[in-house]
Formats: sequence, structure tokens, C-alpha cells
Amino acid sequence: MLAPTDLQITTLGNCRFESPLKLSTIERDGLGDFVRDDLRVDFDIEARAGHSPPAEPLSFEKAGPRQRLFFQPSQTSIAIVTCGGLCPGINNVIRSIYLEATQNYGVKSVLGIRHGFLGLNPVSDLRPVEISSQLVEEIHKLGGTVLGTSRGPQDATIIVDFLQQQGIDILLCVGGDGTQRGAHSIFAEIAGRDMPISVIGIPKTIDNDIAYVDRTFGYLTALEEAQQVLRGAHVEARAAIHGVALVKLMGRHAGFIAAGAALASQEADLVLVPEVQFPLQGNDGFLATLQRLIVERQHAVVVVAEGAGQHLIPGQQQGCDASGNVKHHDIGVFLRDKILDYFAEREMAIRLKYIDPSYMIRSVPANCADRLLCDQLARHAVHAGMAGKTNAMIGLRHNKFIHVPIEAATTQTKCLQVEGDRWTSVLLSTGQPRWPSRAAHHS
Amino acid sequence: MLAPTDLQITTLGNCRFESPLKLSTIERDGLGDFVRDDLRVDFDIEARAGHSPPAEPLSFEKAGPRQRLFFQPSQTSIAIVTCGGLCPGINNVIRSIYLEATQNYGVKSVLGIRHGFLGLNPVSDLRPVEISSQLVEEIHKLGGTVLGTSRGPQDATIIVDFLQQQGIDILLCVGGDGTQRGAHSIFAEIAGRDMPISVIGIPKTIDNDIAYVDRTFGYLTALEEAQQVLRGAHVEARAAIHGVALVKLMGRHAGFIAAGAALASQEADLVLVPEVQFPLQGNDGFLATLQRLIVERQHAVVVVAEGAGQHLIPGQQQGCDASGNVKHHDIGVFLRDKILDYFAEREMAIRLKYIDPSYMIRSVPANCADRLLCDQLARHAVHAGMAGKTNAMIGLRHNKFIHVPIEAATTQTKCLQVEGDRWTSVLLSTGQPRWPSRAAHHS
Amino acid sequence: MLAPTDLQITTLGNCRFESPLKLSTIERDGLGDFVRDDLRVDFDIEARAGHSPPAEPLSFEKAGPRQRLFFQPSQTSIAIVTCGGLCPGINNVIRSIYLEATQNYGVKSVLGIRHGFLGLNPVSDLRPVEISSQLVEEIHKLGGTVLGTSRGPQDATIIVDFLQQQGIDILLCVGGDGTQRGAHSIFAEIAGRDMPISVIGIPKTIDNDIAYVDRTFGYLTALEEAQQVLRGAHVEARAAIHGVALVKLMGRHAGFIAAGAALASQEADLVLVPEVQFPLQGNDGFLATLQRLIVERQHAVVVVAEGAGQHLIPGQQQGCDASGNVKHHDIGVFLRDKILDYFAEREMAIRLKYIDPSYMIRSVPANCADRLLCDQLARHAVHAGMAGKTNAMIGLRHNKFIHVPIEAATTQTKCLQVEGDRWTSVLLSTGQPRWPSRAAHHS
Amino acid sequence: MLAPTDLQITTLGNCRFESPLKLSTIERDGLGDFVRDDLRVDFDIEARAGHSPPAEPLSFEKAGPRQRLFFQPSQTSIAIVTCGGLCPGINNVIRSIYLEATQNYGVKSVLGIRHGFLGLNPVSDLRPVEISSQLVEEIHKLGGTVLGTSRGPQDATIIVDFLQQQGIDILLCVGGDGTQRGAHSIFAEIAGRDMPISVIGIPKTIDNDIAYVDRTFGYLTALEEAQQVLRGAHVEARAAIHGVALVKLMGRHAGFIAAGAALASQEADLVLVPEVQFPLQGNDGFLATLQRLIVERQHAVVVVAEGAGQHLIPGQQQGCDASGNVKHHDIGVFLRDKILDYFAEREMAIRLKYIDPSYMIRSVPANCADRLLCDQLARHAVHAGMAGKTNAMIGLRHNKFIHVPIEAATTQTKCLQVEGDRWTSVLLSTGQPRWPSRAAHHS
Repeated sequence: MLAPTDLQITTLGNCRFESPLKLSTIERDGLGDFVRDDLRVDFDIEARAGHSPPAEPLSFEKAGPRQRLFFQPSQTSIAIVTCGGLCPGINNVIRSIYLEATQNYGVKSVLGIRHGFLGLNPVSDLRPVEISSQLVEEIHKLGGTVLGTSRGPQDATIIVDFLQQQGIDILLCVGGDGTQRGAHSIFAEIAGRDMPISVIGIPKTIDNDIAYVDRTFGYLTALEEAQQVLRGAHVEARAAIHGVALVKLMGRHAGFIAAGAALASQEADLVLVPEVQFPLQGNDGFLATLQRLIVERQHAVVVVAEGAGQHLIPGQQQGCDASGNVKHHDIGVFLRDKILDYFAEREMAIRLKYIDPSYMIRSVPANCADRLLCDQLARHAVHAGMAGKTNAMIGLRHNKFIHVPIEAATTQTKCLQVEGDRWTSVLLSTGQPRWPSRAAHHS
Repeated sequence: MLAPTDLQITTLGNCRFESPLKLSTIERDGLGDFVRDDLRVDFDIEARAGHSPPAEPLSFEKAGPRQRLFFQPSQTSIAIVTCGGLCPGINNVIRSIYLEATQNYGVKSVLGIRHGFLGLNPVSDLRPVEISSQLVEEIHKLGGTVLGTSRGPQDATIIVDFLQQQGIDILLCVGGDGTQRGAHSIFAEIAGRDMPISVIGIPKTIDNDIAYVDRTFGYLTALEEAQQVLRGAHVEARAAIHGVALVKLMGRHAGFIAAGAALASQEADLVLVPEVQFPLQGNDGFLATLQRLIVERQHAVVVVAEGAGQHLIPGQQQGCDASGNVKHHDIGVFLRDKILDYFAEREMAIRLKYIDPSYMIRSVPANCADRLLCDQLARHAVHAGMAGKTNAMIGLRHNKFIHVPIEAATTQTKCLQVEGDRWTSVLLSTGQPRWPSRAAHHS
Repeated sequence: MLAPTDLQITTLGNCRFESPLKLSTIERDGLGDFVRDDLRVDFDIEARAGHSPPAEPLSFEKAGPRQRLFFQPSQTSIAIVTCGGLCPGINNVIRSIYLEATQNYGVKSVLGIRHGFLGLNPVSDLRPVEISSQLVEEIHKLGGTVLGTSRGPQDATIIVDFLQQQGIDILLCVGGDGTQRGAHSIFAEIAGRDMPISVIGIPKTIDNDIAYVDRTFGYLTALEEAQQVLRGAHVEARAAIHGVALVKLMGRHAGFIAAGAALASQEADLVLVPEVQFPLQGNDGFLATLQRLIVERQHAVVVVAEGAGQHLIPGQQQGCDASGNVKHHDIGVFLRDKILDYFAEREMAIRLKYIDPSYMIRSVPANCADRLLCDQLARHAVHAGMAGKTNAMIGLRHNKFIHVPIEAATTQTKCLQVEGDRWTSVLLSTGQPRWPSRAAHHS
Repeated sequence: MLAPTDLQITTLGNCRFESPLKLSTIERDGLGDFVRDDLRVDFDIEARAGHSPPAEPLSFEKAGPRQRLFFQPSQTSIAIVTCGGLCPGINNVIRSIYLEATQNYGVKSVLGIRHGFLGLNPVSDLRPVEISSQLVEEIHKLGGTVLGTSRGPQDATIIVDFLQQQGIDILLCVGGDGTQRGAHSIFAEIAGRDMPISVIGIPKTIDNDIAYVDRTFGYLTALEEAQQVLRGAHVEARAAIHGVALVKLMGRHAGFIAAGAALASQEADLVLVPEVQFPLQGNDGFLATLQRLIVERQHAVVVVAEGAGQHLIPGQQQGCDASGNVKHHDIGVFLRDKILDYFAEREMAIRLKYIDPSYMIRSVPANCADRLLCDQLARHAVHAGMAGKTNAMIGLRHNKFIHVPIEAATTQTKCLQVEGDRWTSVLLSTGQPRWPSRAAHHS
């Protein structure tokens, strides 16, 4: 249970410098407006008529350009680091950070850290690159990240030594859960040394599973691609006699991509997500349900999120590779084999097509909605850093950009609400059984 | 200035029937939840810390399935009418209305009215079609509207006679500003006769200019297409010596498409929108600004919303065609000629490419984000109608679906806030002059 | 070695009926022209200057509408069967056959056989469908086949009984190598019974590996999709430190898709095709070559055709599933494991992404070039059948449509010429080693 | 009537240098093969059985890498010039020329001429750019031309002075009809001065209207885009009551794009091309035909090539702008107005949507088929130049790459054969009247 103080944003100190942005604090003067530091966005925005509001309602600090800055732009160096798996839009974030920082604020330099946190560790021998107009000119049209990425944390003391040595004032961390936790350690180390370095997070999760944030960049692009894949899967399933297409989509902890793609495409007959603990065997289990579907519709399209059904895989402890990824087995391959065995035993001929499009989805360029989101997130991150905010992540909630304390964002994961609109729509549209949900999660 | 009562939703009367939807009112029972009738969504969700909230804060009724219904599903006939210009997603709305109404509620029939309000007038000889599973099977992948459309209102008394004669209980009106005003007249006529017919609006404006609503369907798809057009325009402009691409985009009253496409593509050098009253001549005028751009960058991409610069066109009163559209001149052609004359006078050779992609943009199938929005709008419209709401339009605000009284939605238009984020970003990214805004509008 | 007689087309007998097509045999009368039955297209069209042509040059019968028909259109029933794996364009072929047969010739009926040759066997209980305008209206925009497909042959005597019983006069067989061999058996059985039934083949191979034919439908669409996949693979490989993307593309016997996609995308560093017998181990082997590439370029994209490297997989005889497909191991998974082991042994950290997009590629709608090709192949197949040709396959060679005797087309497979332009370009553009070719094949 | 000598290719002289390409002249040695200089590709490849071939059959020189070169690669400078309107694939040609010339031949330098022939005239002040790996790295994915373009010729003597002064040995001219004529003048001037400079043409016409060449680059990409436009046009036409979509497509002298897009999309009801002289008025005229269509089908899609119907526009001599383009009137606008007047007179309400997508079509990146074609054309142009060929254009005919003397290619234009397959298919699929053809043209 959050208290209002849990949502307070840390600042580095007094804002002694005037912002160079051509904005004002006066309404209707034709100039865009600075955002006041005490402006808040409500946490809960629904209430029952006639019920009085809570005494101490929660709220988030509103993001946006501040009139006074902690850093003097001409003396400021900003560094960008991009971590973890690919997600459509990373290059757009890099580009807009660069443009905002240089064209609008006029900062001294914008550095690109190579290959994630590793590039902040001198042993990697990966020197930061000085970002230039030429470098970013066309990158908003490209998938991937021009800075490279890697997985896993690095020692915060080494990183802070490096930031100090490179004269970096603001570190912008583009990454998911793990990256934001890493950003928090860096912040803590900086705070311990009492140094004037800002650490700002930009959430990057194609799974859309960051707490307090309605939508993360890359998610809508991923849906677009996933929908194409489901269209093809349906074509394959329907062409064969008793054709089954089994499509594994992204979603380690949350089924947003699986559910969203299923609803958008309207091509799925069964959707399996991490939030729902489906049984494999038994009359109500996945396999018997699939059999009924095939008998009834002659074909079936099954969508499974990569984090679904983990309770079913025996001896899950197969160890990790050097990059921290679980080896060998995955739910897609597991289900594929279970399905084949099940129908082989019953001597029912099916044609199973197993489709795993993850790399193809996450490597595409961002679509328009994500381009706009990336642009805004990037600019708000620069605003936050220049104003001396730190340990803050930029978020989009209720269609407003806000500052979320990094701890708050990383102590939980956002999941599909199994009683919410999205999942209810999936159940109604597929007609699949109402299997029990996993222990509840916050959304 | 709105009063809380302005946002009250009219209902047809007592809800005597139990909803057949498999939902509950109990949290954590694994079943999705009905929405209580007294649940409200806040109008304003930003506040300054320490300032007390207004005594009578405005709020909207939350949309969603109700536990008790006004209409008995098995006796209920729903009609859908689609009006005005094309917009990506209309077919998706039709399909999801049909699916929700038949699969989930089990209504008696869903009728499709042909060619807009005209099809509600018997003189048209356009008989409604009975919508079937087969009809809607693949239509969510197609642009346009399978029901056809037309422009302009019809006599409300004739329409209500027709509804009565056809036994229609719920009329779902998919259309823009004008359509919603038409829906309101129909509601008023029904109310005058004290008949139990519900009229529910689904806002359709590719321009995204409906008040109180954050995003309308088709808008993001339009941006996606417009962005492609701007990419091509930039390629054309850059290939020529002193190449100028002039692109007219949609936006009669509001520049959301022009501004959004400019920001998403980052290919525009000058953006002209209805909200900003730019001068043509003079040192700060459009033409001299364009000349400076061409000299500096060797080429220029100009984006103009169709409703921009109307103050510049002399003798605007050229009359209308039968469909109510202003004849002959448009701002795109007007500017094209002015540009050609201007540079001809100055003997500066330019290569002007005039591009008007409107029909190509609005006729494409909806993208994934719009498909999801259409699906939800459609289902919420059915929920609202079945619960006996009337004179209500479904909206998406602060990421929540709400009921907006149709009068409230049609008494004003949403415009770009010239001091807001979006337009400020356009100004900063293009570097264009800060021309004065038109009289202020609400957003 | 072919003799001229090997390319003679069998006919069912005297052509007693006038074609109803609005064509003529007179040039420059504004009417399109019937094709004379003795018009031939040269087999070889290159020669050295001053060398006299061969005494008996080979040539193919030119395809096209004949002035006189064997079948009386109003009495004729045509059946279409689509067999084997999916390929973009099958629905386009079905649609154009229907349109040509009904709109232009006015035949009695066009039947669609369900699920391949199986639908020609009454035990399957799959009744043929009567094709109608409504059925084909939108199918040219859809991937897959509305008739369904299956793999494997059926007994020719049963099929011919069925054709006879159904009153089918012309059987159009859309499929690959195996299907055409099946068509030939059906032809042989018909010939043995001396029945007036025509069997015409339309080659369908996404791999583009049919002899005597320059391009088969679906191939260019597949390249388009494969190119997108390689773009994503490159993005993935480049983002990681020592990133390797391994992409398995289609191509059982021939590397046309792998080579074409590599050249079109210019994103591949190594291309492995069935025609080239690459070693795995050793200094010149695949693994050491890959290592050198990674060291030099920091990342690598490897494309492997599914039929490549079969000599490397031990105990290839793993048996087949009910559908005749080899079980379990495939070259993609095999190489993936070999790569992981190789670098693990050398303690060189790489990040391997394995991508298998086949189902996503083959299920898309046909692109424009393939739509045009499908339309022509379908119409030429109808022309051939109506003129009483049989045992003939329609082909495109030297940009002309021809009749190829089915035996000639099925006695060999077309492969990449390792000394030809295409493969030489791949070698030059990737710089990969010049591994020895497999035993030579005809192209 | 061509004589065999008309197809002889001019050479600059003795080939004294060994090609550095890793090819051989030995078959089955695993190395790709050089093309012998006396290898020819037949002009006509169809013949009637039993008819003896002509005594002196025409043939073209086969394109390809030669074993011996006129230019010593390490001393050779190549220049590329791109002229005329945009066409998908120009950047691909530039990139592949650069790669072939530097990676495979090792030439001294590759220069890019800026903005067409103008950049070969020093008064333009447009300095050539030295092309580099970095410049071409991503350009194959972009529309337009990175070198810029312009229209119109320049004085050949000035150009040849410039080539000499810049030390250019091989000039590769990418452009259409006019450009190739320009290239021919440059060749003639060089020949007059007896200088060892090679001039090689690469045909660029999105209209696909170059004589002796089956397909030019950009054409298939244009069809793909045009087909999308027709899909949207059909959606627009069908949504309205008596909706008419009038789409103007490219095609100054030939209707290949209009006919190809109509056939591929199967969405057109009437196709107007330059090769067919349709009447406007009268019972068989365009307007009455359109009226019948609308009455019958309730809507109509009309496709008009830009060069169609020029006989109908009175006072066509409206003069040209500085760039040589006819001012104001065009056939699209002309027909739009005629249609509106016609139906207004008859008081028949129609809804006309006029669509002119040319700039949007020609500015897109090349699709896969065109990428492959561009790559080959570019490489063959380098081969031809290095071997000392001159005054030759690279062509694709009967699926083979050939050398066409530039005069031969420019003395006529390729047109749709009104009695050929393509146009006959259009007539059959639309059912439109068989209007008389313009004076016959060669194809």
C-alpha cells in the first residue's frame, strides 16, 4: 500500500539557472508553458458519486519543462544507455534526447554508452560515442539501437567512478525492470557520495508490464506485428485438415501482447497468459479443450505468452546461460510436444505449425503511435534531468506524463487484470474456459 | 462553463432485466465485473499540491456493462448507421457491435442502415440489411464501410417514424460532429414522443476533433499513412534543386493530423494548422519564411491542414455542392498558386510538388491500436444502449471509457492547444515562426 | 538429354468447337489474337555469333487461347485442386480460373476440390464446392487457399472414378513436384481408359525449383517477406556484442529464396544452400569462417536454406510423420547447436538468435508481381484445358508462357547454378568461401 | 526495320588488361564464368513449327563481366549521373555500381554527379561527390536519389570538357528516354574528339516504356503502390451512393502502369491509356459508358494514364514552365471536370473522388524484385564500361541482360500492344468498350 510520500521525487538541489526554452508561465500569450513543480496528476481518477475523496489522495508529479534548472546547459553532459532486449523505438528515444538536449537546451555534449551497462564499465573497453546530428539523422526509421545493448547489471561503484571521470551530469537509462533497478543502485551510490549527478529512467518493455504506467513504447508496434503473425497462423491452420497453429508471443510476466494481439486480430481460439494458471490435463484442461475446438471448428489457433504455464514444466531449474536466460525448454516447445503426444495417443491426425516470431517482432522500426510516445518520453527525460530530478522514471498514466520514483516502479510488475476489460474481452471472444488466475498482481 | 448537471446521462427508465453477460459484481472471483451506474471518471485530473479540490468537481459516467438492462435482449433490435466521410475502423465498429450484441447479449437482430441517415428515410428506397456472421466475418480487415455512407441530415420525424415502423430499439450512430447533432435531434424527437428508443453515439472523426475525448478511432491509422506520405514528400523535395513539397492533410477545424504526422515523421519544415492564423505576405509571412527555408536547406516540406488559412482566401463564399462541401478553391491549391507566383516574380527557380493524399489515407484498414479502440467503443455502445442510456456518446478520456451527453460533445470542437505540448513540439522541431493563434478553443 | 519429341504436348482429339472468346487471327484489327497451335518458343536463346544453330533445336509449344476448342464450353465442368504447402497466390489462381472459365468461356461449372488430392478420394468425405462469384470476390487479397490443402498422393484409379462420376472434364492441378507427378498418374490412368478428360498442371513452388520454368508464383512475395526477416535479423545481430543471427529460409532442393533474399536485402554475411556442400569443421569450414566473421565485423547474419547441409546430419533416417515430413532434426536447429557448442568450447561469448520464419512467409497474400503471374497462369491453364491439351504444365520461360509436358517438368529439379550470376553475386557480396558444389543440376 | 548491324555495340578499342574478377572461362570448375564477347541473345524467340528461321536473325550482345578490360581498374574513375523524375530503385543502382566498381574491380574512384546533367556543367556550381562505403551503406532502403536529379539536357561540349577535366573514364547515365538521348550526344561528342571515355546507359522509366527492354526498374514497385491506391479508390467509390473514383496514374506514352495496376488489383471498371483513342461524347464514348457503369454497379473506379486522351484537350499548347512541364491542364483534371459537368447536366447526383498519387508512388523505396533488378543492371553497367563498351544501354530482355545500342533504344518507345495479352486481359476483366488504338507502336 503506497503512501503519498512514496511518490515524492528526489531532487539534486537548488535550481539556479533559467531555462533557455522559449516557453512562459503565462497562459494565452501564445507561448507554450513551463510546468510548475507542484503540479500533480491524480493516482486514482474513478470514484463513486456521492462518496467523498480520500483524505490523502495519492498523486504523481507532472513531467514537463521547468522554468528553472539545476544544471547550466552549456556546462552539462548527458549520457544515454540502452539495456536489455530490443524493443521498437529505442533509436527514436536516442534521437529525441539528442535533439531536445542540443537544439532546445544547448547542452555541451550527449554521449552514447555502448552495449548497455557494460559500456559504463571500463573493463569492457567500449568507449562512449559522441552523438551528433549526422548519427541520429535517419535512425528514427530503424529498428534496434545504434548504441548496442547487453543484459545484466554492473557494479554501481565502478559505474559511478566512470560517470565522474567522464564528467557526466545526467544519466538517462532506457530499459526494463532490471535496468531500472540498476539505475536505482547507481542513484544510491551517487547519493552516498553526495554527487550532483541525475539518474533518470525511461521505461522500455515491449511486454508493457511496468507498474503505474499505462503504455510503454514498442508495445503498439509489437501488437501490429503480432497481429500479422496471427493472421498468417490462421491461414496456415485453416488450410490444413485439423490444422493447429501454436504461436508463442512475448510476455514474461504479463499477457498484454498475447491478449492485445488476440483481440486486435480476432484470429485466436485460445489464449494462454502468465496471469492464468491453466491445467494441461483433464476434461477442462488445455489439451481436451483444444481437441474440442478442433473437432468443432476443424482448426485452431493457440496463442501462448512466453511466461505462461511455467507451473507445468517439470524440473524448470535447467540453469542459465551466461546472459541469464533460462536454457533449452520453453513453454512453446513444451506445449508443441505435449500436443503432438496427446493427439498421437488418440490417433487423431492433426497438422501442427509452431511459430515463434519474437525476434521478428521486436526488431522492427516503431510505428507512428510509438514514435510519438518515444519523442515525448525522451524530451521529458531531458526536462527532468535538467531540472535536477533524480531517481525518477518518466511514465505515461491517464494520458499524462508523470515522474515515478524508480523504487515505486520496480517493486512490482503490472499484469493483466483477470477481471478487467481486456481479459474479459478475450474470454468472451474466444469462448475459452475460465481457468483460475495466478496470485493477484497490481496493474 | 460546464456544470456537473451538464454531464448527467439520460436513461429511458427502469432496468428490469438481468444482464446475460457472464460477469459479476464481486472482486477476485475470477469473473470480470459489471460497472456500477454511479461510478464516475474525473473530468480534471491535475491539481497543484496543497490546493483543495473544487467543491463540485465535474465527472463523467463510466461506460461499461451494467448488471441490469432496460431492454430484454431476446426482444431487442439494434440498428447501426454510419455517416460522413470515411475513416479507418468503421467496419471494425460494425463487426464488434454485431458480435457483442448477438454473441454476448443474444439480441433479436442487428440491422445495418445503408448510406447514412439517408437510409433511415424511406424515400431513399435503401432497405436496411440484416447483419449476419457471414457479413462481418472478414470486414475488420477492410477499409471503408460495408453499410455505405452519405453526408447531411434527414428529417428527424421521418426517421423516428421509420425506427418505430422497423421496431428498432437502439440506434447506434457512428459519425462526426454533424452526425452527433443529427443523433441529438432524433433523440429529441423520440423524447417528445416518449418512446423507449435509445440513441447512442460513437464518435468518428479522423481529425480527432471531438470535445472531451482524447482519441477517436482512425486517427492513429491516419497518422501512420500521413507519415508515409511525408516521407515521400521529403524524398521528392530533396531530390530536386530548390524542391518544395506541399502536402495537404486532413483537419477542417483542428490540426491534429498535420501536427501529429509532422512530429512522428520529423520530415516537415513548416506546419500550417487551422488554430494558427499565419500571414501570407510580409517578412514574417509564410512566403518569405518559405523562401528563407529553401535558401538555407535547399528544399522544404510544407504541411497544411485543409482548414488552415481560411482567412486568406478571398471571396470564400463560393457556395456549396449538393453534399454541403465548399466548392472549387481549397487552401492547398491556393497556396500552391501563391508559392508559384511568388517565386516566379522573384525569378527564383523552384520545383513544387503538390500532394493531396486525403482519399488514400482515409480509405485504408484500421491499424492495431484503432482496431482495439473500435472494438471497445462498439461494445461500450451496446452496453449503454442495453442499459437504456440515451443521448449519450461513448468517449475515451484519460484512458477510460465514459458516457458523454451528446449536447456537451457537440457544442464545441476540440482543437490543438497552441500552448500545449503537441504544438510547442512542432514549433521547436520545425523552428517555424510563432504566428498568432485563432480565437482560443477548448481541448 | 531432351529430344524435340520430349516436348510435344498430348491432345485429347479433334477441336470441333469455336472459341467464344472475342479474339481474332488477324493482326491490327484491334482484337487480341488467338495463338496458333504450331507456334513455338525457343528452348535456348543464346548463341555465339557465327555459329550455326543446331539442326533440331528444342522448343516449347506456346500457351494461349486457341481458336478451336475440344470442349463445348456450355457442357464443360472444370475442377481445381490445390495441393502441398502454402504459397502466396493460390487464391489468385483459383479466382482467375473461375473468372476466365465462366466470364470468358461460359463453362457449365467450376468445382473446387477440398484439401488436395484427398478431396478426390470419396473416403475423405470432403465434397467438392461449387465455386461462385461470391466465393472468389475478395480472395485475391488473402493468403492461403480457400479450398484447403493436404500432402501426399491418392490412388489414381479412385481419383479417375471420381472424376468420371462427378462429370469433370478438366482437372487443373495446382502444386509442386509431387503434385505434378500425381497429375501425371491421373493422366496415365485416364489415357489407359481412353477418356476425354484433360489434366493440366499449374506449378506451385515457393522455392522456385521447377525445371524449365523461370519463375513460379509466390517466389517474389516470399523474397519480399524474407528480406524483412533478414533486416530484423541484422538489427538483432548488430545490437548485441558478438551477435549472431541464424535464419532458416525455405528451399528443400534449391537455394533460390536464400540467395535471392540475401542479395535483395544485402544483410547476409554467409549463405548456405543445398547446391553447395560446405564443411562444418576445419579452417575453411563453416564454424571457423563464422568465427572469423564475428571477430572482424563484431556480428554476423547467417542464412541457411532448409535443404542445405543434409550431408552433415548424422543418422538422417529419423523416419517420417504421417504427412511424410522428416521428424525432429533440421539443419537450422542442428547448426544452432553446433554453433553454441563451438563457441562454448572456445569460451567466446556470443549471442545467438535463431529465426525460423517459414510459416510467416508462406501464408501472406501475393504481391503485385505474383498476382499478375497467377492471373496469367490460371487463364492459360483454362485455355489449354479447353483446347483439349492434357498432361501439360503451364510455364513461364524467357518471359513467355509455354506448355511443358508434365514428365519433362518432373524428371528433374531446377537448382541454383553455382557458376551462374545469382550465386556468383552472393559469393562476391558476402565474401564467403567458395565451397564445392553438390553434383550438378539442370537449371 | 532493324538490320543486324543496328544492334552492334561500339567499343573504345583493345582490351589490354586482365579482369581482376574471380571468375573463369571453364565450366564446372566452381567459378562463375566470364561472358564471351561474341555471345548473343536472340531478338525473336518465337517461330512456327516447320518454318525455317530468317537468314540473318537479329540478336543482342549479351551483357556480363568480360575477361579482358579496356580500362586498368586501379587507374579508372567512374561517374554516375541520375536524371529525370524519381523512380524506385535509383539509390540501389548507385550503391551496386559503387560496390561492384570498388569491391570487385578495385577502381580508383566513383564520383556522384549532383542533380542530373546540370551537375556536369560547371556553371551549376554543383561539385561531384566522392562516393564512399559510408554514403551508400543504407541507401538501398531509401526512395529517391542521394545524388539529386534535374530535368533537361546540357551542352555536350561543356559536359565532355568537364569529364576530361575531372579525369572521368566511364560515365554511367541513369535515366529515361531524354537522358539516353543526352547520353548519346555525349558519346557523339567524345567520339568526335576520339577520346577513351565510355558512356553507358541504365534505363530508368517507371512507365516501363523503353524499347527492346522487357522490364525497367521501379515498374513493379510502382504497380505495388498503385494497387494500394486502387484498393482505396474502390473503397471510396463503393462507400458513396453513385460513387466515382477517378485515379490518374503515371504513363506519358504507355499505359503499362495503368493496365498492370488494374489487372493486379482487379478493382478498376474502366482503364484509359495513351495507346487507345477513346471518344468522350456519344453513346460509346467515355461519359456515357461511365454512366451505364454507375447505373449498373452503383459505383465506378476509373483509371487514367497521364498520357491518355491528349487528343481531347483543346488548345493543348498552353506553354511550359521553366522545367519543361506543360502547365495547368492535365487529363485527370480535365476528365474530372467533364464528368462533373456531364452528370450535373443530367441532374444525376454522383460523388466524385479525384486521386492523383504520382508523387507518393514514385518516391517509395524499391521492392524486392526491383532491388534485384537494380543490382544486376548496375553491375552489368560497370562490366560494360570496364570492357570499353560505349554508347550502350543495359537491358533485360527474355530474362537475359543485354547491351542495346543507345540509338536503337531511343528511336522508338515501347507501348502496350493493344492486341497483346495485357491489354486484352484488361478489356476482358473490365468489360469496357473496344475503342480504336492510336497509330501502332512497337513493343
